[in-house]
Amino acid sequence: MKTVDVCLSPELIHHYDLAHKIVVVVDILRATSCITTGLASGVISITPFESLDECVAMKSKGYLIAGERDGQKLDGFDIGNSPFSYMESKFDGEKIAVTTTNGTLAIEKSKDANLIVIGSFLNITAIASFISGLPDDVIVFCAGWKGHVCIEDALFAGALVDKLIDYEYVDDSVYMARSLYIQHKNDLLTFVQKAGHAKRLRKFNVIKDIEFCLTLDKYEVVPIVKDGVIIPA
Amino acid sequence: MKTVDVCLSPELIHHYDLAHKIVVVVDILRATSCITTGLASGVISITPFESLDECVAMKSKGYLIAGERDGQKLDGFDIGNSPFSYMESKFDGEKIAVTTTNGTLAIEKSKDANLIVIGSFLNITAIASFISGLPDDVIVFCAGWKGHVCIEDALFAGALVDKLIDYEYVDDSVYMARSLYIQHKNDLLTFVQKAGHAKRLRKFNVIKDIEFCLTLDKYEVVPIVKDGVIIPA
Repeated sequence: MKTVDVCLSPELIHHYDLAHKIVVVVDILRATSCITTGLASGVISITPFESLDECVAMKSKGYLIAGERDGQKLDGFDIGNSPFSYMESKFDGEKIAVTTTNGTLAIEKSKDANLIVIGSFLNITAIASFISGLPDDVIVFCAGWKGHVCIEDALFAGALVDKLIDYEYVDDSVYMARSLYIQHKNDLLTFVQKAGHAKRLRKFNVIKDIEFCLTLDKYEVVPIVKDGVIIPA
Repeated sequence: MKTVDVCLSPELIHHYDLAHKIVVVVDILRATSCITTGLASGVISITPFESLDECVAMKSKGYLIAGERDGQKLDGFDIGNSPFSYMESKFDGEKIAVTTTNGTLAIEKSKDANLIVIGSFLNITAIASFISGLPDDVIVFCAGWKGHVCIEDALFAGALVDKLIDYEYVDDSVYMARSLYIQHKNDLLTFVQKAGHAKRLRKFNVIKDIEFCLTLDKYEVVPIVKDGVIIPA
């Protein structure tokens, strides 16, 4: 039987053996929701960078640049950190270079995996179908926020686990995440808004972003990381 | 308003500022349940040691020695790692030196706190009353298992948070733990038995221990750490 595991923070990922596994990286607010939205909207590829400078340098190579630090859009960037900013039709056929606080770090830390998939509520059923069709065990890797556990990433982990039929659960985190999702699945928004991270985001008037990022199955695209570049599977 | 926070793993505790705070250390299976049982049963004090050798050396100073590694009792020790082994009337008035895998580490990592309290389901209402009467903010510190998040520690954190009226919640972990507890409070045992850590423990035939450790309010004692020694408050 295939197994599924959940890692709640990048600072705990060293406890998980990623070799031969599919790692689903999730940073619901907002990196992986943005990436999914971009690829679903016609963007060819999205390349994540840990440093601002590396990201900015890609502009001269014909890339659009996107980024955030501490949840705020960066000056001089083509694209903000809202999923809505990834929807413009003029980005169709373009390549994007992106730098984010937590999402990029989680992708970087997943490099030993057999396959890295980018997950969000927006494409959760497509993700579940895709990985269910593969023979590998699965680890859902919550990007969190600066090492802290984030409720929206944990809820996604629970929702994905709930869709993976006939997988064996490994760590206690799997049971926790799934239980949390089952309890709140009919009103994810209220629960996420109550939690600290969303309270912080609320300062930036991003309730519309949060609501969008918690929408299930808006897209069919399955973004995967190939040689450091995120493309549709 | 006082605040309450929850840390789900010793490897995340550096994100929390412990100064001027009450830290409630919890390792339900089984260190903090054992400590609570011992002090409630007449033991004078319990001194935790990280290393086996330091613990064993206390025998020549008149201490009883107790310990476990990987959930197993250690050869040559007076007391095992089951809470039932802490109940013997002959331990009345004795001092115990104990070494455990995760609990001792969490106590060690709490040394910057204003006050360290040892928590378990066995004395949860007494703990809640005690800390509610103090002016300090609270952090519930889950000892976990070798860095992994443990369901029984998270459930305790949620249960304690639920008893702290008029505290502001800080991290997402607080909402997660409380939500988990609310959902499973009428049958903690079933949920804990399903989870990985308990599955591991089940190999050692410790279902009776688990059932006992999930019993609420058996004792009134509030163990605190003073100069490295655990004594009743």
